[in-house]
Amino acid sequence: MQNKFFRAEHLKEACGVFGIFAPQEELARITCYALYALQHRGQESAGIAISDGDTIHLEKGMGLVSEVFPSLGKFEHLQGLAAIGHVRSAVAGTNKPENAQPLLVRFHQGELAVAHNGNLVNAKELRQRLELDGSIFQTTTDSELVAHLIARCGRGELESSIADVLSYLRGSYAFIFLTENKLIGVRDPRGISPLSLGKLGDHFVLASETCAFDTVGADFLRDVNPGEMVIIDREGMRSIQVFPRARSALCIFEYIYFARPDSNLNGKNVHLVRKRLGRRLAQEQPVEADIVTGVPDSSIAAASGYAEEIGLPYEVGLVKNRYIGRTFIQPTQARRDEGIKLKINPVKKIVEGKRVVIIDDSIVRGTTSMRLVSLLFKAGAKEVHLRIGSPPVISPCYYGINTPTYEELIGAHHSCEQIRRKIGATSLAYLSRKGMLEAIGLTAESACDACFSGEYPIWGG
Amino acid sequence: MQNKFFRAEHLKEACGVFGIFAPQEELARITCYALYALQHRGQESAGIAISDGDTIHLEKGMGLVSEVFPSLGKFEHLQGLAAIGHVRSAVAGTNKPENAQPLLVRFHQGELAVAHNGNLVNAKELRQRLELDGSIFQTTTDSELVAHLIARCGRGELESSIADVLSYLRGSYAFIFLTENKLIGVRDPRGISPLSLGKLGDHFVLASETCAFDTVGADFLRDVNPGEMVIIDREGMRSIQVFPRARSALCIFEYIYFARPDSNLNGKNVHLVRKRLGRRLAQEQPVEADIVTGVPDSSIAAASGYAEEIGLPYEVGLVKNRYIGRTFIQPTQARRDEGIKLKINPVKKIVEGKRVVIIDDSIVRGTTSMRLVSLLFKAGAKEVHLRIGSPPVISPCYYGINTPTYEELIGAHHSCEQIRRKIGATSLAYLSRKGMLEAIGLTAESACDACFSGEYPIWGG
Amino acid sequence: MQNKFFRAEHLKEACGVFGIFAPQEELARITCYALYALQHRGQESAGIAISDGDTIHLEKGMGLVSEVFPSLGKFEHLQGLAAIGHVRSAVAGTNKPENAQPLLVRFHQGELAVAHNGNLVNAKELRQRLELDGSIFQTTTDSELVAHLIARCGRGELESSIADVLSYLRGSYAFIFLTENKLIGVRDPRGISPLSLGKLGDHFVLASETCAFDTVGADFLRDVNPGEMVIIDREGMRSIQVFPRARSALCIFEYIYFARPDSNLNGKNVHLVRKRLGRRLAQEQPVEADIVTGVPDSSIAAASGYAEEIGLPYEVGLVKNRYIGRTFIQPTQARRDEGIKLKINPVKKIVEGKRVVIIDDSIVRGTTSMRLVSLLFKAGAKEVHLRIGSPPVISPCYYGINTPTYEELIGAHHSCEQIRRKIGATSLAYLSRKGMLEAIGLTAESACDACFSGEYPIWGG
Amino acid sequence: MQNKFFRAEHLKEACGVFGIFAPQEELARITCYALYALQHRGQESAGIAISDGDTIHLEKGMGLVSEVFPSLGKFEHLQGLAAIGHVRSAVAGTNKPENAQPLLVRFHQGELAVAHNGNLVNAKELRQRLELDGSIFQTTTDSELVAHLIARCGRGELESSIADVLSYLRGSYAFIFLTENKLIGVRDPRGISPLSLGKLGDHFVLASETCAFDTVGADFLRDVNPGEMVIIDREGMRSIQVFPRARSALCIFEYIYFARPDSNLNGKNVHLVRKRLGRRLAQEQPVEADIVTGVPDSSIAAASGYAEEIGLPYEVGLVKNRYIGRTFIQPTQARRDEGIKLKINPVKKIVEGKRVVIIDDSIVRGTTSMRLVSLLFKAGAKEVHLRIGSPPVISPCYYGINTPTYEELIGAHHSCEQIRRKIGATSLAYLSRKGMLEAIGLTAESACDACFSGEYPIWGG
Repeated sequence: MQNKFFRAEHLKEACGVFGIFAPQEELARITCYALYALQHRGQESAGIAISDGDTIHLEKGMGLVSEVFPSLGKFEHLQGLAAIGHVRSAVAGTNKPENAQPLLVRFHQGELAVAHNGNLVNAKELRQRLELDGSIFQTTTDSELVAHLIARCGRGELESSIADVLSYLRGSYAFIFLTENKLIGVRDPRGISPLSLGKLGDHFVLASETCAFDTVGADFLRDVNPGEMVIIDREGMRSIQVFPRARSALCIFEYIYFARPDSNLNGKNVHLVRKRLGRRLAQEQPVEADIVTGVPDSSIAAASGYAEEIGLPYEVGLVKNRYIGRTFIQPTQARRDEGIKLKINPVKKIVEGKRVVIIDDSIVRGTTSMRLVSLLFKAGAKEVHLRIGSPPVISPCYYGINTPTYEELIGAHHSCEQIRRKIGATSLAYLSRKGMLEAIGLTAESACDACFSGEYPIWGG
Repeated sequence: MQNKFFRAEHLKEACGVFGIFAPQEELARITCYALYALQHRGQESAGIAISDGDTIHLEKGMGLVSEVFPSLGKFEHLQGLAAIGHVRSAVAGTNKPENAQPLLVRFHQGELAVAHNGNLVNAKELRQRLELDGSIFQTTTDSELVAHLIARCGRGELESSIADVLSYLRGSYAFIFLTENKLIGVRDPRGISPLSLGKLGDHFVLASETCAFDTVGADFLRDVNPGEMVIIDREGMRSIQVFPRARSALCIFEYIYFARPDSNLNGKNVHLVRKRLGRRLAQEQPVEADIVTGVPDSSIAAASGYAEEIGLPYEVGLVKNRYIGRTFIQPTQARRDEGIKLKINPVKKIVEGKRVVIIDDSIVRGTTSMRLVSLLFKAGAKEVHLRIGSPPVISPCYYGINTPTYEELIGAHHSCEQIRRKIGATSLAYLSRKGMLEAIGLTAESACDACFSGEYPIWGG
Repeated sequence: MQNKFFRAEHLKEACGVFGIFAPQEELARITCYALYALQHRGQESAGIAISDGDTIHLEKGMGLVSEVFPSLGKFEHLQGLAAIGHVRSAVAGTNKPENAQPLLVRFHQGELAVAHNGNLVNAKELRQRLELDGSIFQTTTDSELVAHLIARCGRGELESSIADVLSYLRGSYAFIFLTENKLIGVRDPRGISPLSLGKLGDHFVLASETCAFDTVGADFLRDVNPGEMVIIDREGMRSIQVFPRARSALCIFEYIYFARPDSNLNGKNVHLVRKRLGRRLAQEQPVEADIVTGVPDSSIAAASGYAEEIGLPYEVGLVKNRYIGRTFIQPTQARRDEGIKLKINPVKKIVEGKRVVIIDDSIVRGTTSMRLVSLLFKAGAKEVHLRIGSPPVISPCYYGINTPTYEELIGAHHSCEQIRRKIGATSLAYLSRKGMLEAIGLTAESACDACFSGEYPIWGG
Repeated sequence: MQNKFFRAEHLKEACGVFGIFAPQEELARITCYALYALQHRGQESAGIAISDGDTIHLEKGMGLVSEVFPSLGKFEHLQGLAAIGHVRSAVAGTNKPENAQPLLVRFHQGELAVAHNGNLVNAKELRQRLELDGSIFQTTTDSELVAHLIARCGRGELESSIADVLSYLRGSYAFIFLTENKLIGVRDPRGISPLSLGKLGDHFVLASETCAFDTVGADFLRDVNPGEMVIIDREGMRSIQVFPRARSALCIFEYIYFARPDSNLNGKNVHLVRKRLGRRLAQEQPVEADIVTGVPDSSIAAASGYAEEIGLPYEVGLVKNRYIGRTFIQPTQARRDEGIKLKINPVKKIVEGKRVVIIDDSIVRGTTSMRLVSLLFKAGAKEVHLRIGSPPVISPCYYGINTPTYEELIGAHHSCEQIRRKIGATSLAYLSRKGMLEAIGLTAESACDACFSGEYPIWGG
């Protein structure tokens, strides 16, 4: 649901993964639908790999799922056994065709396709070690890194090889692997990246978010546990707890921004969580005003919660153009200065002469907030009170792909008042960390909120 | 903001038109941006015609603006004088490349490009008469019909010819004409189709909706009057009141469904109107329930108004997939039966065990409502109370493009209780006509609500 | 077989037309194959119109047949009754999408699709008259002009209307018309444009060249006569001699350059004609030399005839790149000056130190000849003797589309020796008019060679 | 110049490679032009890699050069240092996007791009060994294999690593490597694959065929020697003779079929060689007949040589459709049976009632010959005498990519008379091996003609 253009400032980016083991089903079609549902997690590239029991077929490309798969093409009449799919988010400098996933490789045990969501913090170090050992790299993905490590693992069962390899990895990950006859999902030992297990009829499915299950008509079974590996083949599903079950640390930004409102994370519905964040924010940071509005789309729920709690009307003060997608004709600087509003437009009649509370989910660099506040004032708002549904972001994320540096994090080295002045808002207030955790229904121990707290989960347990 | 796939049942479809007279400006770029803003009015085709003072250059094609204009192409370095743009909505049976607009013709006075929003009710009759007089037709558009009529008008000023031609036309229209050195906009004598006038710096612009002005950085001047012709050239802007100013009759569905929330129609903001419709609906048709939800996207405002008025929480009970666009892989019947939810997904955690009020803007055929109610019950809703922000649609629209027949209009020959049973809702209630008109701020005299009332505006005044 | 890029200087351009009346056959597929065969007559656009008995379906676009029809698309499962196809050649200034053919119009008798090869010399005058009568034009094609004239012809049989309209036309043409249930072919009264009749099983086919018959597996029946109209419907085939049979005047350039070598014109095979032109040229204009080479592809046959007659070896002194098509990256001027040879390359080893006879089919502007002679000298040729398989072009063609003006025709105002010096050849000689006509097997009375003689066929007989 | 569709039976397929070291030149443009010239060696994929001194930029894709590079795109404004290009021929089962070349990898010394023409006979064995050592493969190309081997070579100079790796390779190859600041070309120790060195101004270029030099305006310097490595960088060009200079063994099919007529191989012009093959064939295998014709395009030269030697006219008895390219609508079986002639058409008027000698360059499986002979008889030929410009193919090629098996080689287990009966020709005769070698100007020692002789060059010298 994120608009990547408008919200380029956001903390980090996610990807979406999906897997299904279902002999003779319409695997390509189902995987496509799942990727439609996960599309909000990444719009840069999309891909599907399908095993027919003997060999793995791959189709991938740059763009939206509907652009890469205008038709099922060569998959149309493929009798498949299992499939995985991937959508990738845009990250500066790595948007190359070769980085599209799934990655398909041939190694001593046969074929292996890999799809990944997350970020390995020791990737660079592992790559260097592998290069010194004579490895070549054709992409900059963590998936290729992991494929190399697995291939170098000797001749045991693939499950053992993967388990061995995981012990080298530091960071967040949800991997789905596909071999000719097996589907394997693993989740990092702290459970930073989300991964859920479901059933479509008699068959097992895996997905980054539960909304993919609804879309394909599958039922949610349970989340994959932190450090768990699930192996699905013709025999059914087995589970190995690769790492000792440790304190869970799901990335808190999944609740705040990444996930789709109809997904459930750890059993909590995302929309309801966001609404509670808004309510709590209203309790902690009330303000006298005329209307409440939210930044579309991720802050709508929090804004309506804030409005309900405080007893103000919730209005659509900002309208987003849903048709400004990945590709459109960019304005020249001259046009930009003349105030064109391609992606978001304040509604003058609504904000004119009003004291406006605007709810956003977070502030990272501060540039977007500055632009929104300015738009509202230009449209005639008398006061603009910015309320943020999370605490200041003070630490870079090491587990996500696209981390602004410490220097870029406005919350890391400015006081709230300094930020307010920079942004130009009448007032600015954040939700407290305690308030955030309680509203979500977490204690500090059951999520990774390092970006807000600077307290990073300890690896391995 | 309409999802054409999900809401195929809707009453009628609109198109979007834009015009600008601005020597030496970046006309193609600006027109493109305006079409992005008007994209919600039509996603079937897009086109731009630009005069360089000597000749008119045309580029058009099927698809979204961003698909037809991935770049400015041959327009990139064109020094233009004036331009018009058009987005066309999908209508069964007419989705042919040749129907894309603007239409460009050569006639005895030179070149003429035409863009049209509306529907001529006597088009068939006029075409037949022209055919008998030896005319050939290459499209099924009203634009071609009008171009023929103008060309047959003898040798006077183009303005006079157009004025003559308008007297033959019955129905709704907003035409923008472009010649080598002139831009002309006209609006039907009852003002059923919207058309507004704005200024971009020193230059005049015309658009179906005011949101296009905001997007290109122009200021709203005023609506074009019913029956008015505005002529814009190097001398400036002139206005001719072709028809006597009569009772205005803007299509009421522009308020209810067509227009973008940030547009203003007759000085009324669309979002605020929709919110008031929701509030009034709550006053007229309250219900004891747990939550209120709206059908995305057009009924969100009405739903939040209803919720605020009645004091229930407004929740996102249905989530729309923003990435299911014009093209995607269609499900097979088998998949469809298995409950895939590509375009809209009920949020189980939100509706489960709840008494849900669902707000929709209108019921036309009833098929969509039936599907939504069923989705909510399957997701666990205890009760589903359907509340409609407008009265029953009882008469076909003769002024719009895509009119369901009388037989298809469920409201035309079923009582409310019969409809409720068909749809399967726990309860069903409509907003009254009086309530609708008052909420919008209209009396029956100042809008065309023939679809609700069966009272069609009288032509000519 | 012409390379449009290299031979842009050529006298005029042709188009290709095809028609078939064959209920229940795979009409789109067959028409596509016929257009593949006629592709050498035009590479700018391609199109197919198919009647299913009730209505006419159209698909057309810019580019090669294989680009416009990568698949049969919507035609795949169409049960057709009759079809027409068209390929259009590139003419400066008219290469617009709207000029692609067939043209499909609706008029008082129903639907009519038109495909045209040729050039009407009084088109401008007729268009002006129609515009003054209130017609609008959406293309610059002769097809649209003729459709207008037919539509204005009152209510008689279509055949009579067409016959009436033909009496207004001056110039060359082969038209194929398609209505819902009829296929009509007409050829201009002098037979300047070629049109042949064939049978595919029990069904009739029409085509600009007989090679299209071979390609689709049809048998040649006979040429359509000058001034003849053939009407094909469910009843079979009828013929009307619209104009009295007059002296035939097939464009002589069809033999020399336009037609494919495996086509037969007036019963004469094109390859054999070209070979005889070469032999006759050797008899008239022998030269002492080492090798004979031809300009690919149209002059290969003449060159081998010349070589055989004179007893010299025929060598490939110039090689053409078959992969430089309509679209490729154009060289900058700097590159061009450095002697890149994208489209044609002299073979150094073959021409080095040799006295080379180079055969070309004609000289129009002289620019191509100059470039070729220079290439051969740079590659080391000792002498370059240019021999032309036709007389000097001294008069513009009024019956073709793309006529260089009198000023541009180098043969119109330069002596042979002056041309030789401009071109830089060691010697230059043309075939005589008498020699050309005899080699082709014509007398002056049975072809239009106005471009060589200045004697234009008299209209109407 | 091969038509891949018609001549699918051919012995093996080639690829084309190009390299240039030229700081600040228009590298992408020049490489594109070179690939146009080499396009006849492969139409499946095309790619270009350019180093800007710091990093290597890659663009590649499926299709013709003009399809992959409709524009220079991101290369347009790239200041390059060196570039390599590749065109790949279609081989069943390997036509996957990931196999497009150049291959770009990152290894411990930085970036490396690889382009390859040839076939490694021990590729499978080397891959298996690498896989056992933990390597992963993302393609099925020899380029990736070699990149792996180089990466595992420790930390010395790249030249030494490559030289080391070459000692493991068995088969034919011309590799061009590109690093950030170096261009390296190597040719297999027997010189089976062609590779030539040229100069463009002050800068060095490498190409599979000399026609690429002509096209870009470069001058031929010399062939790269068998077993030679040339290293080109800012210092100039150095050469290392990696293998002792051994008997040269250029693939004889380069002369017979692969190379473009204007290319020179070992100083011999390909067109002239083919013509001599035809002359010699006439001396060895004369026949009483009326006309001589050749299979387009590769056998035209041999056919004209045969005709001249024997004193018969050379005629175009078969016409090829130049517009039937990689993609076109395939005929159904029904259509095929009805005798459609999409790719090649016999010219009835020429062959009717004639005794025809048809020259082909080789017979591999015999299926094409059978079809051609049948076409000629159906077109009315009285006799069809098939003459082959090379000896029977009796042994599979182990150095080419696409080797029919021994079983598929009709010449391997049938007598000439048996083949004649299968093919249906009036008579059939091959050129002798001695005749072939003498006509080419080789002795058996200076070419690989193992496919004709079964005598494979001995590796390593």
